[in-house]
Amino acid sequence: MKFSQMFMPTTKETPNDATLASHQYLIRGGFITQTGSGLYNFLPLGKIVLDKIRAVVKEEMDNTGANELLMSFVTPLELWEQSGRASVMGPELLKFKDRKGAGFVLSPTNEETVVDIVKNRITSYKDLPINLYHINTKFRDEARPRFGLMRGREFLMKDAYSFHATHEDLVREFHVMEDAYKKIYERLGLEYRVVAADSGAIGGSGSKEFMVLANSGEDTIVVCEDCEYGANIEAAVRAKKETKNWYDLTSENVKMEKVLTEGMKTIEDVSNFLSTPTAQSIKAVIKKAIYKDTEEVVVFFVRGNDELEETKAANAVDALELIDANEEDILNASLVAGFCGPFNLPKNLTYVIDNELKDEVGLVCGANEVDYHFTGTDLTTLKDAKYFDLIVVQEGDTCSCCGGKLIHTKGIEAGHIFQLGTKYSSAMDATFLDNNGKAQPFIMGCYGIGVSRLVAAVIEQNHDDKGCIWTKETAPFMVDVIVSNAKKEEELNAGKKIYNDLKIAGISTILDDRVNARFGFKMSDFELIGFPYAVVVGKKLPEGIVEIVNRKTLEKEEVSLDEVVNKLKKLK
Amino acid sequence: MKFSQMFMPTTKETPNDATLASHQYLIRGGFITQTGSGLYNFLPLGKIVLDKIRAVVKEEMDNTGANELLMSFVTPLELWEQSGRASVMGPELLKFKDRKGAGFVLSPTNEETVVDIVKNRITSYKDLPINLYHINTKFRDEARPRFGLMRGREFLMKDAYSFHATHEDLVREFHVMEDAYKKIYERLGLEYRVVAADSGAIGGSGSKEFMVLANSGEDTIVVCEDCEYGANIEAAVRAKKETKNWYDLTSENVKMEKVLTEGMKTIEDVSNFLSTPTAQSIKAVIKKAIYKDTEEVVVFFVRGNDELEETKAANAVDALELIDANEEDILNASLVAGFCGPFNLPKNLTYVIDNELKDEVGLVCGANEVDYHFTGTDLTTLKDAKYFDLIVVQEGDTCSCCGGKLIHTKGIEAGHIFQLGTKYSSAMDATFLDNNGKAQPFIMGCYGIGVSRLVAAVIEQNHDDKGCIWTKETAPFMVDVIVSNAKKEEELNAGKKIYNDLKIAGISTILDDRVNARFGFKMSDFELIGFPYAVVVGKKLPEGIVEIVNRKTLEKEEVSLDEVVNKLKKLK
Repeated sequence: MKFSQMFMPTTKETPNDATLASHQYLIRGGFITQTGSGLYNFLPLGKIVLDKIRAVVKEEMDNTGANELLMSFVTPLELWEQSGRASVMGPELLKFKDRKGAGFVLSPTNEETVVDIVKNRITSYKDLPINLYHINTKFRDEARPRFGLMRGREFLMKDAYSFHATHEDLVREFHVMEDAYKKIYERLGLEYRVVAADSGAIGGSGSKEFMVLANSGEDTIVVCEDCEYGANIEAAVRAKKETKNWYDLTSENVKMEKVLTEGMKTIEDVSNFLSTPTAQSIKAVIKKAIYKDTEEVVVFFVRGNDELEETKAANAVDALELIDANEEDILNASLVAGFCGPFNLPKNLTYVIDNELKDEVGLVCGANEVDYHFTGTDLTTLKDAKYFDLIVVQEGDTCSCCGGKLIHTKGIEAGHIFQLGTKYSSAMDATFLDNNGKAQPFIMGCYGIGVSRLVAAVIEQNHDDKGCIWTKETAPFMVDVIVSNAKKEEELNAGKKIYNDLKIAGISTILDDRVNARFGFKMSDFELIGFPYAVVVGKKLPEGIVEIVNRKTLEKEEVSLDEVVNKLKKLK
Repeated sequence: MKFSQMFMPTTKETPNDATLASHQYLIRGGFITQTGSGLYNFLPLGKIVLDKIRAVVKEEMDNTGANELLMSFVTPLELWEQSGRASVMGPELLKFKDRKGAGFVLSPTNEETVVDIVKNRITSYKDLPINLYHINTKFRDEARPRFGLMRGREFLMKDAYSFHATHEDLVREFHVMEDAYKKIYERLGLEYRVVAADSGAIGGSGSKEFMVLANSGEDTIVVCEDCEYGANIEAAVRAKKETKNWYDLTSENVKMEKVLTEGMKTIEDVSNFLSTPTAQSIKAVIKKAIYKDTEEVVVFFVRGNDELEETKAANAVDALELIDANEEDILNASLVAGFCGPFNLPKNLTYVIDNELKDEVGLVCGANEVDYHFTGTDLTTLKDAKYFDLIVVQEGDTCSCCGGKLIHTKGIEAGHIFQLGTKYSSAMDATFLDNNGKAQPFIMGCYGIGVSRLVAAVIEQNHDDKGCIWTKETAPFMVDVIVSNAKKEEELNAGKKIYNDLKIAGISTILDDRVNARFGFKMSDFELIGFPYAVVVGKKLPEGIVEIVNRKTLEKEEVSLDEVVNKLKKLK
């Protein structure tokens, strides 16, 4: 391909809203253009990158024996009503009516369609397992589309769905997918981490995320310095904190007492006043839980020096979302802000206590009465309390796998695999006959990769202050042959010869043969676009010498015309 | 690929609404499933066929130097308001609002987006021409989705858009595209015809359609028996009819007279009564023309033995659509049904006369008065009349190119190329600087191929009463190796060996290794799915003999195990 024949409008202008490097450089490098909020077009260079990533994903999926199909993007709302997600998914699910008034959605994912396809077409355990995938447009009506391709509304996703007769077989396929995903990220040249994850709106249990490591990542992930453990902050766990350093109390040597703590609404105030460590107190977080048709005030209790993890908390009460409770909500629930604790709560109020507080003795908490706290509490006496993991794992916490130190890092979610179970097959009454001739709902897994998001993720991880630095599998072209001055016939001819020789050698190459662009402009396009190598045909041509530039290191090396192809073959 | 590992749910059940062979066989053969009205999923076999066709289209487009990109499927309504099509396109254009109330459309085509992309990014004639294409999902909210993939609502289309500085350059590219399209249809193994076409809602002039010939085609096309002439009936022309055989009159020897023709409302009645040929009369067709915001009664006049072509008529009055005028409409327009003619029409009434009636003398027509006709009329006296080509070309009419005989045939529109001109660039203010430094709107062409429709078109042209017969470039696999009884180890092993040898020989092959399917079932799947060849490994295996079956002819040939691969290599 030649610059002169390709539409690649590079620009110096950065979009106002572009804070991420990938957003800036993909626009500036002529890879993408924006056509509306969260809507992007892939220009020729961007399309090549997208296709390369797509091809790697397809190859690795095909290698596992998964079957590629193509499901329609527009889906009848009816299917989403069958699964129950029509109402659960909220405004991210874009619904519309056709000319006849029938309801449809723009698919954000395709569990419903694939179950509908398999239902009645696979009827026996003998035809299981099967793994069906497609790579197709998705749409999520994000509240705040941003970060370019990273959080667009229309995007390209690979989504796979497996069907099994047994849970064991699902687990086997889950590992097959995990391995395939690892190969994909490795081939793409990405530094990544597989982490435990929350299952979110998709549902199911046992899910893992594939995080491309990048400082700009939206996700905080918890990793162990010593072992392989990694988890999204939403799903991270730690070894239970040992309280002996702080206090050492048992049911026998405490007595619950109500103490006056006038105006002391914070953990710190109360702890100071009572001269106890903050870890010896219980923190209450009052939230409003949003459900499909209702909402309810709920209280979460965590240790005084821990923080509430909202996703864990929402899962604990099966809420779609949690929002902060306001003064009126708190009043209506007969609660007292600043003095809330798990003892003497209003009847019928939903509350959840963090796992690590189970059976704790001697803690301080609010007395549900203005200006009073309890000391010497005994949580073993709370017979009906519900306990869940509710806390944010912090840096320095202890790994539950190996006892190592946990730290935080940032990642871009670029893949997610789920052990779904029978959530969708049961809801949509999709069954097969097992080996006893009994109808059973399919046991399912689902597996997603954000293909267009990966285009951005590669750049988030690989760029400098001049522009993109594509990895070898993702580069639109491996080599950019730059003719310094294309008006000089000998330079142009030498460039064309190198270009043709590289193509014959199987190296994807583009020729910068533009007559009206200066050398400096061509070099800055090379740096902005980020081809792995440039060959500069310039002033030393009469001596038979050209220059190879390495985009990543920006190192330059003079090589003779005879050597240039062999040299690049080795670098490839 | 193996049958045992691939999801290909063939069925004997034909959908109730499936009248076309392609609709029936693509569903029955497990190529597609329906997920809603006009919405289809491509199952693994169908996806392979779709990808093969898509790859041929891409290759031939790339060979012309066109640049592939990918435009977003969801497009802001604002762009469609700029072009004016938001209101013109009617309910086929599916509009919806996002969560913030902003308007969007599901792209049925992408002129607006591509002009928006090129605008301000190509600024000089030096960067022209450029041809940008993509292969992406489209949506048209058809009033009556039907015929499976033939007229679905969501479909896959290749659409290309070229930008030029001069009309001559557009014409050059138009021919490049015409040639590329011909190569595509030839490679796909299709019998097709390039025909002149109406430009429809896309606009512009000079358009050609590519018709895949098939009896089931929705389009009637007019072709010449003797020369290359072909046209969609909506755009077909003929040599002007010579009237000397019917009558031979001039302004000098006629005199317009009003005659009583009581109750004679048809051409036949009046012609019988006056003993004139029907060709010597003028037929009036009263219609209601629908415009963006208004509607109007209009009258079209054609020769008594001709028929009005509605698309031509709508174009003649620039209407979006024509519908039949009812009694009330006719009354309100002060017209008299059955006695309408071009003389003495109500003032300000829009009427159009067919080209072939221009300057005709001696014709009979209604007098716009109940029970009266005029004879001896002289159309040269109608000074303000507008003349357009309005008539349906009939079988037996004369070719205007060569004088040969025109006949009708049926075709499936599978491609359409347009010389758009500046319609969209002007409306959207997209300009470049010409070589005098003057801003000019881009001169554009656009070029579409219905990729998913071609899947159906191949089958409409290539099937028998047993199922599909894929052409070599479109077949999901070239050879189906059928193991008669996969429980017999020697048969299964021989089948696997042939399967592997064929793959090594570069022949795409599938192995029917199903243990629980009988031979008859496997054979009927072969016939239904329509792989070009089967190799049957069966009862003569102990003698070293297998059978090659040709799907098209259903001929069988015994060959030795040693020969089978070479034999199939030659057939490929």
